[in-house]
Amino acid sequence: MHFASDNTGPIHPQVMEALTEANNGYLLPYGNDEVTQVAIAAVRDVFEAPEAQVFFVPTGTSGNALALSTLCMPYQSVLCTALAHIHEDECGAPEFYGVAKLSLIGDSDLMDPDALEREIVFLNEGGVHSAQPGAVSITNVTERGRLYTLDQITRIAEVTHRHNLPLHLDGARFANACAALDCSAAEMSWKAGVDVVTFGGTKSGCMGVEAVVFFNPDHARGFAARRKRAGLLFSKSRFLSAQMLGFCRDGLWRQLGAEANARGQYLADILRQHPRIEWPYAPEANMLFPALPRSEIKRLMDSGVKMNHWGSIEGDGNEMLLSRFVCDWSLPYEQIDAFAEILRGMG
Amino acid sequence: MHFASDNTGPIHPQVMEALTEANNGYLLPYGNDEVTQVAIAAVRDVFEAPEAQVFFVPTGTSGNALALSTLCMPYQSVLCTALAHIHEDECGAPEFYGVAKLSLIGDSDLMDPDALEREIVFLNEGGVHSAQPGAVSITNVTERGRLYTLDQITRIAEVTHRHNLPLHLDGARFANACAALDCSAAEMSWKAGVDVVTFGGTKSGCMGVEAVVFFNPDHARGFAARRKRAGLLFSKSRFLSAQMLGFCRDGLWRQLGAEANARGQYLADILRQHPRIEWPYAPEANMLFPALPRSEIKRLMDSGVKMNHWGSIEGDGNEMLLSRFVCDWSLPYEQIDAFAEILRGMG
Amino acid sequence: MHFASDNTGPIHPQVMEALTEANNGYLLPYGNDEVTQVAIAAVRDVFEAPEAQVFFVPTGTSGNALALSTLCMPYQSVLCTALAHIHEDECGAPEFYGVAKLSLIGDSDLMDPDALEREIVFLNEGGVHSAQPGAVSITNVTERGRLYTLDQITRIAEVTHRHNLPLHLDGARFANACAALDCSAAEMSWKAGVDVVTFGGTKSGCMGVEAVVFFNPDHARGFAARRKRAGLLFSKSRFLSAQMLGFCRDGLWRQLGAEANARGQYLADILRQHPRIEWPYAPEANMLFPALPRSEIKRLMDSGVKMNHWGSIEGDGNEMLLSRFVCDWSLPYEQIDAFAEILRGMG
Amino acid sequence: MHFASDNTGPIHPQVMEALTEANNGYLLPYGNDEVTQVAIAAVRDVFEAPEAQVFFVPTGTSGNALALSTLCMPYQSVLCTALAHIHEDECGAPEFYGVAKLSLIGDSDLMDPDALEREIVFLNEGGVHSAQPGAVSITNVTERGRLYTLDQITRIAEVTHRHNLPLHLDGARFANACAALDCSAAEMSWKAGVDVVTFGGTKSGCMGVEAVVFFNPDHARGFAARRKRAGLLFSKSRFLSAQMLGFCRDGLWRQLGAEANARGQYLADILRQHPRIEWPYAPEANMLFPALPRSEIKRLMDSGVKMNHWGSIEGDGNEMLLSRFVCDWSLPYEQIDAFAEILRGMG
Repeated sequence: MHFASDNTGPIHPQVMEALTEANNGYLLPYGNDEVTQVAIAAVRDVFEAPEAQVFFVPTGTSGNALALSTLCMPYQSVLCTALAHIHEDECGAPEFYGVAKLSLIGDSDLMDPDALEREIVFLNEGGVHSAQPGAVSITNVTERGRLYTLDQITRIAEVTHRHNLPLHLDGARFANACAALDCSAAEMSWKAGVDVVTFGGTKSGCMGVEAVVFFNPDHARGFAARRKRAGLLFSKSRFLSAQMLGFCRDGLWRQLGAEANARGQYLADILRQHPRIEWPYAPEANMLFPALPRSEIKRLMDSGVKMNHWGSIEGDGNEMLLSRFVCDWSLPYEQIDAFAEILRGMG
Repeated sequence: MHFASDNTGPIHPQVMEALTEANNGYLLPYGNDEVTQVAIAAVRDVFEAPEAQVFFVPTGTSGNALALSTLCMPYQSVLCTALAHIHEDECGAPEFYGVAKLSLIGDSDLMDPDALEREIVFLNEGGVHSAQPGAVSITNVTERGRLYTLDQITRIAEVTHRHNLPLHLDGARFANACAALDCSAAEMSWKAGVDVVTFGGTKSGCMGVEAVVFFNPDHARGFAARRKRAGLLFSKSRFLSAQMLGFCRDGLWRQLGAEANARGQYLADILRQHPRIEWPYAPEANMLFPALPRSEIKRLMDSGVKMNHWGSIEGDGNEMLLSRFVCDWSLPYEQIDAFAEILRGMG
Repeated sequence: MHFASDNTGPIHPQVMEALTEANNGYLLPYGNDEVTQVAIAAVRDVFEAPEAQVFFVPTGTSGNALALSTLCMPYQSVLCTALAHIHEDECGAPEFYGVAKLSLIGDSDLMDPDALEREIVFLNEGGVHSAQPGAVSITNVTERGRLYTLDQITRIAEVTHRHNLPLHLDGARFANACAALDCSAAEMSWKAGVDVVTFGGTKSGCMGVEAVVFFNPDHARGFAARRKRAGLLFSKSRFLSAQMLGFCRDGLWRQLGAEANARGQYLADILRQHPRIEWPYAPEANMLFPALPRSEIKRLMDSGVKMNHWGSIEGDGNEMLLSRFVCDWSLPYEQIDAFAEILRGMG
Repeated sequence: MHFASDNTGPIHPQVMEALTEANNGYLLPYGNDEVTQVAIAAVRDVFEAPEAQVFFVPTGTSGNALALSTLCMPYQSVLCTALAHIHEDECGAPEFYGVAKLSLIGDSDLMDPDALEREIVFLNEGGVHSAQPGAVSITNVTERGRLYTLDQITRIAEVTHRHNLPLHLDGARFANACAALDCSAAEMSWKAGVDVVTFGGTKSGCMGVEAVVFFNPDHARGFAARRKRAGLLFSKSRFLSAQMLGFCRDGLWRQLGAEANARGQYLADILRQHPRIEWPYAPEANMLFPALPRSEIKRLMDSGVKMNHWGSIEGDGNEMLLSRFVCDWSLPYEQIDAFAEILRGMG
């Protein structure tokens, strides 16, 4: 019962096949190979963006940090929420890559466009005393498993662009969000005002690859140099590219997003039957954040359920703890059913 | 006839098999998986260093830069030669990762230990006006295809340690060097006074993996945090580790180094027959740097030979240009023979 | 009526005299002069800390940033409150100097030691995914004009040291705090558990000088090199040092702190008479943060009162705005009386 | 006999007077004061550049590093000679401030424009593997006391601009160079193709101030933010500005440059009489680099002469050592005459 993360599972066979296909003969290194050119074209197709600048990197953290540092001057900040992965879980990567600071807009996973506008105005008034805004970043699926609707993204983009800032979308779970919103990749990105996407492959069935997609080529200036000096330009780039190629082929990316979501919703239905469960965050894709009594979480974990929770589970108290269950595309429904048995046994 | 680099070829089947084996079931992410533990043990075995701290990264540039920045305080410099890959070919990665500066010791590929000592003394005398030495870095096989002998490494290590500095070895072609010197990995590293090795897998048959090996665990303090904030901690770490595991198993690493060297020497013998060839750098492993007349280089390239050279080949002049031929482990001898035909036809 | 800041006023005559005295003959540059040695001794005397490492810098921002980056490894964070000057008003200087991130403990000017401990534990549990704590920083007088008592500082130091972290005190208004608490410099620093102080001269009558004082010399390792590579080592260091010497001589620093506080309290008494004034932050030293109706603030500013406030003063609304009045040591009481007249006329 | 540096002497009375004049009443902080506005106008007058963007900083190192990092993207390098102060004596400040790397053009103090062009072409060909050129920096008076003529500067500027790079002039001794070349500030800067000057006050009679002058305002974008986050924006900016104001008033800057040069040439004439002196670098301004026998240097130093030399003076050997004598504007001719006595006594 592996609900700890969507990065604990295997690689999808179609991605492995693409790797095997690419493992053939001599190709130019450093991205000057045909596989990379075809993979870039495939990503442009997914996003209906023939002019987009596309770069492959092996991790989401590097993709986000490279994208954001490319959008900002070194004395500028990125505005995000206090729950943003770039703030909470990347060990300061954006700052390391050259963003001056992260300026936090509220402590929800969903950014409030009015609060965003107030902070931009406030920072602008601070003049040189504040790190000036350089870009805005949001995440979809959010860090609490919820979704920005297309309208919500559009509203944030309007504020962002009104102040001449670019909007970045951390799409570690882009596939899940797109599938859940039943929209196209273009609709959830440039059509809604997003300027740059980190399009995640790793959590959705790849070995380790993300595509950074700049819809405005001017925004990409310097990305290639930054990627190289970070040691992220692969000499055998074809093997990064091949993963993305396999992932994009025949809409696999979207299908895997949908499959993970279906498992997530199946699990949510089971959890809903628990009498004491609460939902501080609505379960909308493949990642669920219910609150459960401390004692129940302990029992689940003792029964071998792999999951996360916040707060120590020692002590007698039985307060409600926030927990996290994630389903990846490969998770057997039998495992979820087995979990249901355990949960019922506990009720 | 692919002599442009040893990163243009395919992945060795044993490495691909290790990847396939690892692609099975649910494992903890971020290096907390069994495959990673086994791969670390395998690297320790290769180096006969059971206490070594071992970290996997996907590229040589990131391995070097992380290793060197971990060895230095941010205001300290790394001493290397002017031909060092970390100086010439990594787009400033060591400085980006936190090394204050590279201080250059001569313009050969081989560092002179006396010149090293003079520079250390000079920089120390500079006090705060100079970036103070923090570490020394050498490369074996060198950037001109030559070898440091074990004695030469030992002499550099003596100078380095006399000034309380650690010695780093850029081992992008560690396997080739070890095979050419007919020594063990331990002999070419900690037994000769090397403190940290970037042990390269990528150029020797892997997809993209290097092991950074710290023989003194104290030197590794902070490496894990630095790797994460650079976005280089793979969530699905098992697939980095599996490559290294396949590479180390049954001495494959050494065998592939030897095979590449054999092809290099076979090619050198052919080149030696050319009446006008000169050898500014003795060909000692799998990478050759002969000088050839400009016209011959042009004819070779026109014949479809993939190689590198320095200096434009336009114009009528027929001066000698430095060129580079690299053989990887997989290169068919038939290709080298075909090259011999072309070369003879030109003579 | 200059209440905008305590950095708008002149230099105290005793400081100017020290500069004139120092302007004599030839002295070694870069701090190897006698004036600097005497000034360091004077600061050690002020703090009763004969072993302290003392460094002079021209601004508070540089003093704080150099101190904090010296305390941290580049992948570690500094914990401070969301109102900290280092977070709000230094344009990202700590991060620029090498602190990975600022981790915010609450949004008050006063840090809660329990919240501090919870955050340290939380970040430690985050492992490499979070920037690990490297140091804690508080400010006295706080950014809202209040004081930490010696007991409060001690409690924060206890938490800090329990987790093996050093405690930094931003003492831009150290003199005011010491005078207001009626304690010695030692009592407000190392005796209460503070490890490093930025001891401010600029706001208290100097031209531009702060002393960074490390009570544990081990903590100061690398400070000199960092100061130089930031371009903050003055060639004619004697003129930084002379200011600090004049400032420390005969307890001038403390006297000027007390004089500024006396003016602050005199002004506070006048403000208290205003029928609609509110005090979200008790006025305890030379910097006052009353809330006043928007209309009154507008009238004060229209009458030539120099001050700060938060929030736009346009519109008809008459909500209460937070304002800031600061008195420096030199401010004529007549100006405060003149302000009282205006305020009364408005009432 | 203080020939060690031109930063060991006192402040010129006219500069002290300007400081005293500025020490009067309440002025806005952070450069929003009248003194700063007047000082900026004075620098623009000196350079006949009414549109220039002018910023004051306290040290040459900070001025150079801020100027160069403002001209470059973080992944770009600055091209300078191996003797450049920014390379040899600033502890890595340019890199700390955000320049990716320094790329060295020869090991003379005078940059060869042809070598410059070759290196630019070479780096451009390196693509992402090399840090790409972002700016070029030269120094006048050079680090070996020589002068670039206006023609030589123009030739370097032509190469620089042909490759769309800006040219920076480290003018720590701008006044001496201008006086020695008998040209105007404009002629030695923008009229010769220089885009940015660090105009030095500190070595020529100020306490500690340099003006960074951007002739193209577009080049200055971000400088103010960078200065602040480096902690180099003085709250009491008027005291930086006042120094520069006193320095520029009535051509004092030029007069002090000429006076220092006159002393330098007076000293050179004396040194020329020494039978064994050699001049690897022609003495052209106020800084002399003769080679003298080791024994003579030792005797001079034992006689109390303050100077610098390269190489240890222990041992019996009597090889020629490079030495440095610097005269500042204030040096009494009697001291030089006294030195002449010692030198003659030694002959």
